[in-house]
Amino acid sequence: MTDGEMAIGVDIGGTKVFGVMVDGAGEIVSAAKLTTPRSFRTGDPQVLLETVLEVVDVLSARVPVQPAPPVGIGVPGLVDRAGRLRFSPHLPEAEGLEFGNLLLRTLANRSVVVENDANCAARAELEFGSLQGVADGLMVTLGTGIGGALISGGRLLTGASGFAGEVGHMVVDPSGPPCPCGGRGCWERYASGGGLGRLAREAAAAGRLTAVVEDVGGDPENVHGEDVTNAARSGDSEALAVLAELGWWLALGLANLTAVLDPRRCVVGGGLAEAGALLLDPARKAFDELVEGGRARPGMELVAAGLGERAGAVGAALVARDGRQ
Amino acid sequence: MTDGEMAIGVDIGGTKVFGVMVDGAGEIVSAAKLTTPRSFRTGDPQVLLETVLEVVDVLSARVPVQPAPPVGIGVPGLVDRAGRLRFSPHLPEAEGLEFGNLLLRTLANRSVVVENDANCAARAELEFGSLQGVADGLMVTLGTGIGGALISGGRLLTGASGFAGEVGHMVVDPSGPPCPCGGRGCWERYASGGGLGRLAREAAAAGRLTAVVEDVGGDPENVHGEDVTNAARSGDSEALAVLAELGWWLALGLANLTAVLDPRRCVVGGGLAEAGALLLDPARKAFDELVEGGRARPGMELVAAGLGERAGAVGAALVARDGRQ
Repeated sequence: MTDGEMAIGVDIGGTKVFGVMVDGAGEIVSAAKLTTPRSFRTGDPQVLLETVLEVVDVLSARVPVQPAPPVGIGVPGLVDRAGRLRFSPHLPEAEGLEFGNLLLRTLANRSVVVENDANCAARAELEFGSLQGVADGLMVTLGTGIGGALISGGRLLTGASGFAGEVGHMVVDPSGPPCPCGGRGCWERYASGGGLGRLAREAAAAGRLTAVVEDVGGDPENVHGEDVTNAARSGDSEALAVLAELGWWLALGLANLTAVLDPRRCVVGGGLAEAGALLLDPARKAFDELVEGGRARPGMELVAAGLGERAGAVGAALVARDGRQ
Repeated sequence: MTDGEMAIGVDIGGTKVFGVMVDGAGEIVSAAKLTTPRSFRTGDPQVLLETVLEVVDVLSARVPVQPAPPVGIGVPGLVDRAGRLRFSPHLPEAEGLEFGNLLLRTLANRSVVVENDANCAARAELEFGSLQGVADGLMVTLGTGIGGALISGGRLLTGASGFAGEVGHMVVDPSGPPCPCGGRGCWERYASGGGLGRLAREAAAAGRLTAVVEDVGGDPENVHGEDVTNAARSGDSEALAVLAELGWWLALGLANLTAVLDPRRCVVGGGLAEAGALLLDPARKAFDELVEGGRARPGMELVAAGLGERAGAVGAALVARDGRQ
């Protein structure tokens, strides 16, 4: 392998900026993680760009290669084909940012490509993970919200403006809770990490999740999603029941997407996928009951992402090396 | 044009079987419509096949061409690639029917192709109607239920098993009314011809639609969707309000599909599309408010089908001539 096959990918999230340098085989040669700066959250997007550049600098210093590797950036939300973030419910301070142009000014000797984070994750899963060899597939990333990417003919389906795959903002209950996107009852209010927190606090307020509530000091409002997944791993039946409820909502959206797209396989990534079988087993069971014409369908495989949470950054590097689809 | 470019298309609906013979330019040379036999509705699918054959015979006798033109059949529901109807909420008596094989036995000298009815309609709209030149698009047919077809790269997107496009069975309210598919709160319970009937009877029972209720004899349960569209055409403000409500639900599902697929244009066909601007104007307005990141998107064109209700039969003929995609 040559230096020319190296690429850097950076996955920008609401809480952390995670970057990797990958070699020609997609192996991670080096990784760096920085906290998304707090001042960014109060309205200074320039700080975010500096954090991204810092991650790129760290990786470049650790693994000096010539020519300087291309850089791919994954961001949550609507990213247009010019690399501008047009809309981002979970990164609103960065809306309108021309990531591509701004980064190119500093990284003038490199190519810079910006892409939706879930599309990046799907690229990595297609090449090295659970979407290998899948012609008709789907990827959902369960984090603060839900990201999505559609696979048709073994390639990303991007839509007219590159905005396809915003599956988290399917409305599944028009009178449901408000969503940061401005809508109501979006799927991600129920089946994401944020959704788990909400379901958990509702359960706690209703007198369930007794052991978890005790562990966090007695206030149901202090219960977070990870408290539930931790308790479920230890066999807490009330926590398992909340994960089963989350699985039902996950299955509902996947059943909707299956009616529309008829995928053979759906890959679940993002932080919440770490719950593994505790989430996917009840989701599979509910899916078979919820999907239209279930008994007439050949079955849809629901599996965890092969690259776990690294998929977004690895995929961003692949996009940098091979271009957007 | 030669006889060899002629093709027959038959669109099977719950109430009528409509067939056309089209020439090489897609023009309808002859058309025939028969009522879907009542005995079929009580469990004798053979009668349905005979009705289809009768339509084919009538068209063939009127326009005798050699060699015998190929025959395409459009049916509502999940049609597999072998031409078998695997699942059909609105034609349950015909489930499991191997249309393709059964018709081939009688039409032994012709090729016979069976395809989902909305996919047929989209094929016709792509070639001669409102989807011409559209790379990323969507077709929805509003009849008893809602059919759908997805366009990507100017071609039908069919999914892993040929079942893609069952957009009517996206759940938009898990506690909504039961659907013939076995689910609850499917989009078609709100935004189809059947959905209009339900919205209308609810409005009538709540004391609205006073003139319409009077016209049908005073019983709110006797109000049908077409009573509302007729009254709306005459300017009845209460009927217009019900169509606006229907338009809101239509927009909700289209907003979901736009989040997922990012189409440039959506074509609305089926019987309900005859309501035209009375339905599409309020739907456009609601869509702009409902779709995620509306102000960041370049706009999605919502237009009526160019071929109206004939699209399904014409498209079935095109599928017969050119094959499934």
